[in-house]
Amino acid sequence: MASSASVLSPPEVPMELHAHNRDKLVRALRDHLAASSRPIRGFVVLQGGEEKTRYCTDHAELFRQESYFAYLFGVREPGFFGAIDVASGKSFLFAPRLPADYAVWLGEIKPLSFFKERYMVDKVFFVDELVSVLHGNSDESGKPLLFLLYGLNTDSNNFSKPAVIEEMEKFDTDLNTLHPILTECRVIKSKMELNLIQYANDVSSEAHIEVMRQISAGMKEYQLESIFQHHVYMYGGCRHCSYTCICATGENSAVLHYGHAAAPNERTLQDGDMALFDMGAEYHFYGSDITCSFPVNGKFTKNQSIIYNAVLAAHNAVIQSMRPGVSWIDMHKLSEKTILESLKNEGIVIGDIDKMMEIRLGAIFMPHGLGHFLGIDTHDPGGYSQGLERPKEPGLKSLRTIRELQEGMVITVEPGCYFIDALLVPALEDAITSKFLDRNVIERYKRFGGVRIESDVLVTADGSKNLTNCPRETWEIEAVMAGAPWPLNHS
Amino acid sequence: MASSASVLSPPEVPMELHAHNRDKLVRALRDHLAASSRPIRGFVVLQGGEEKTRYCTDHAELFRQESYFAYLFGVREPGFFGAIDVASGKSFLFAPRLPADYAVWLGEIKPLSFFKERYMVDKVFFVDELVSVLHGNSDESGKPLLFLLYGLNTDSNNFSKPAVIEEMEKFDTDLNTLHPILTECRVIKSKMELNLIQYANDVSSEAHIEVMRQISAGMKEYQLESIFQHHVYMYGGCRHCSYTCICATGENSAVLHYGHAAAPNERTLQDGDMALFDMGAEYHFYGSDITCSFPVNGKFTKNQSIIYNAVLAAHNAVIQSMRPGVSWIDMHKLSEKTILESLKNEGIVIGDIDKMMEIRLGAIFMPHGLGHFLGIDTHDPGGYSQGLERPKEPGLKSLRTIRELQEGMVITVEPGCYFIDALLVPALEDAITSKFLDRNVIERYKRFGGVRIESDVLVTADGSKNLTNCPRETWEIEAVMAGAPWPLNHS
Repeated sequence: MASSASVLSPPEVPMELHAHNRDKLVRALRDHLAASSRPIRGFVVLQGGEEKTRYCTDHAELFRQESYFAYLFGVREPGFFGAIDVASGKSFLFAPRLPADYAVWLGEIKPLSFFKERYMVDKVFFVDELVSVLHGNSDESGKPLLFLLYGLNTDSNNFSKPAVIEEMEKFDTDLNTLHPILTECRVIKSKMELNLIQYANDVSSEAHIEVMRQISAGMKEYQLESIFQHHVYMYGGCRHCSYTCICATGENSAVLHYGHAAAPNERTLQDGDMALFDMGAEYHFYGSDITCSFPVNGKFTKNQSIIYNAVLAAHNAVIQSMRPGVSWIDMHKLSEKTILESLKNEGIVIGDIDKMMEIRLGAIFMPHGLGHFLGIDTHDPGGYSQGLERPKEPGLKSLRTIRELQEGMVITVEPGCYFIDALLVPALEDAITSKFLDRNVIERYKRFGGVRIESDVLVTADGSKNLTNCPRETWEIEAVMAGAPWPLNHS
Repeated sequence: MASSASVLSPPEVPMELHAHNRDKLVRALRDHLAASSRPIRGFVVLQGGEEKTRYCTDHAELFRQESYFAYLFGVREPGFFGAIDVASGKSFLFAPRLPADYAVWLGEIKPLSFFKERYMVDKVFFVDELVSVLHGNSDESGKPLLFLLYGLNTDSNNFSKPAVIEEMEKFDTDLNTLHPILTECRVIKSKMELNLIQYANDVSSEAHIEVMRQISAGMKEYQLESIFQHHVYMYGGCRHCSYTCICATGENSAVLHYGHAAAPNERTLQDGDMALFDMGAEYHFYGSDITCSFPVNGKFTKNQSIIYNAVLAAHNAVIQSMRPGVSWIDMHKLSEKTILESLKNEGIVIGDIDKMMEIRLGAIFMPHGLGHFLGIDTHDPGGYSQGLERPKEPGLKSLRTIRELQEGMVITVEPGCYFIDALLVPALEDAITSKFLDRNVIERYKRFGGVRIESDVLVTADGSKNLTNCPRETWEIEAVMAGAPWPLNHS
């Protein structure tokens, strides 16, 4: 069944991936301690996620592991703790002690050896043994030192919650050291991590194409969400998507994070609409984040081509310019400038491009940042490491990272161009910005919505590699929507 | 596209449904206050659910409204409060005041009049106006009285969280009155509620049939989950399922709540397996809960027929016996007894059935309760109202309700028969239970798994109505799996 609809099948996941992640952390932590003349000692201790019920009911939400814990241990079951001995590198998992009737209701109670083997750790105990195990494995005379995870997520402004352990008074704790170091480990992806991100991209690229082939006027937006989700699960084995599917058509495509419960992908598609579909699957925690924009009826109008090609030019210019050492702020500005140049060619904006850049005019058409790190989280952490400060200017302030690119980073490249009343109306009233805008030409794009093109891009030693494989040129999209195979046959 | 694969299309939801629910609550509350010689005054105040992010990240979980709030107001957006004036019956909604950039990121900021119209309430204000509005609408000289929702959910053992309001000191509060009365309102379904539960059943019944038609050995369990979810969303408009899909095959079908993250529907189907699929869609908050059991290859073996027909006989006997005034404990026992009789015919159990009932032997084969209320929650509340105490005996202690049936209740009828090592092994060792078990015959059913047949049944004035419409007889299942239409043509 799978073979006709998909060329993919879910790969085995090597648990060496997480062993490698642990080794990387231990090395980084030792280097840091040595550099600060601190002793190489202590345990990294993380608490995995717990299954949650909905409000006061017993409705269990489908569990998804906390991302830092997933990174280090790859454990898919709830209720675990994990520890790593910094000096020896030895790893420990602590499994919840399940009640006997678990076997009746929820499944076989696995022996600890099962988890030791599956997750390739050195030792497995029960959670209620954590205190004694850490004490027993500590060579120190005093209290063992625990490195706990506490730090700011710069996308949510929330703080990670350090592990909650009984008898905390039996330990010394360090809340400051671990978070920045572990976060930095996550920023640079290993080969094994890249394989999973590539797979999530392959599955999701294929599902986007399936959506393009099945779309037609008269359908509801959510039907395309359903087609996407079905494809990635049925053929790709992806039970989770990386984020709620954004299936925006017509005017909705100007709503950057459309698709949530208050705007739930329920519009009926009209002939002549643009569609903006931002959807990505997750496989063994590692995600993808892909946006395709295309006309619902399969044929670009002139205006649709103009805006689409403006964004595509920005998308391509950025990817071609990416390499280690390049500043992401510069890439954001490059994408803005490329879009403004196209808009100027069409008379949508008028005047000097450099002046427009100075007054941040581009942020009216692209209020979001150019892209973000991608990994176990869709907005993978580490965008503002080492005291980097978020810019204050329009557009730039939405950037989820302002770092220089490094080999091994995976970052989304997602320029967009939107006609958003909430931004355009005040801009047309404003004494400064209004000079650069042609009110009459813009009027033609009222209700147009927007275009976003988003790929997941790896920074390589000498450039970049696009992990996403969707039709991007207008003629490619039109051909695929008309039934051509992808990739196109160039015969 | 929908027309060929489904006969259904998502119906409009009448918001009168929730206005009716509010009226019902107000009448019940007034009656209660009058009966206790208390004045008819005060406001019912409920806090709706909030959107949640995953751990420390900005990953937003798809919001689903809290069920009591959904019952009274039908609001699908997060961040609302609602109030009802007990004396006048007037209803108020309080919407969150959204920041200006919501319009850019999340969609149009709707005027308050939009919510007034959509949700058919008397007045809509902002959440930050709640205190002043309630004071302004109170005729009393002293502090207005607030009836807040606080009480035990007897399935989860969690307590509902009363609304958190600023300046609580400006009000008198009553935490005891509302919960039992509102819960009791939810137990008896209105015609409009029944229409939604029927629709969720129609969609889910159709999706189960689609699964039966597509299943084959070699597939993964999760592929059937994907087919079900896709069918109910694509053709039924159901974005949520009522609960995580249980797609158990082979031995897994003896795990009652299989399918969660630690047992994630990932087995490969074998020729000769039984499948036990417990899946239900939710439409505008109202759910369904349906289990179909059938052979993966479409043909029942003799042993499969024996166990299946034992469960079907119990399922049918219960539905035929249901009517107002009947005790649900008696129905549970009827189902147990019916199953034991079939097992005795096959020599699986031996001896006197009444003795077996006395020692609760049936709970070895059916450790769960016969069924539960169904509505906005899959395990709808109210099963242990008015101080009813949970039984302590095996099997009976798992009952989610022990009430007498009343017209308008919707309850699942879900007898099952499982071969669970964790129960059978000790039972075969036990001096008393082992006398009733034929070790050699039971050995034949090792690795069989289990069978469950679950329908959603309405208690009517003089009997019951099965809202679920799936093939149930073995020959019906075999015919549908071989491609026959459903319902079968009896020509």
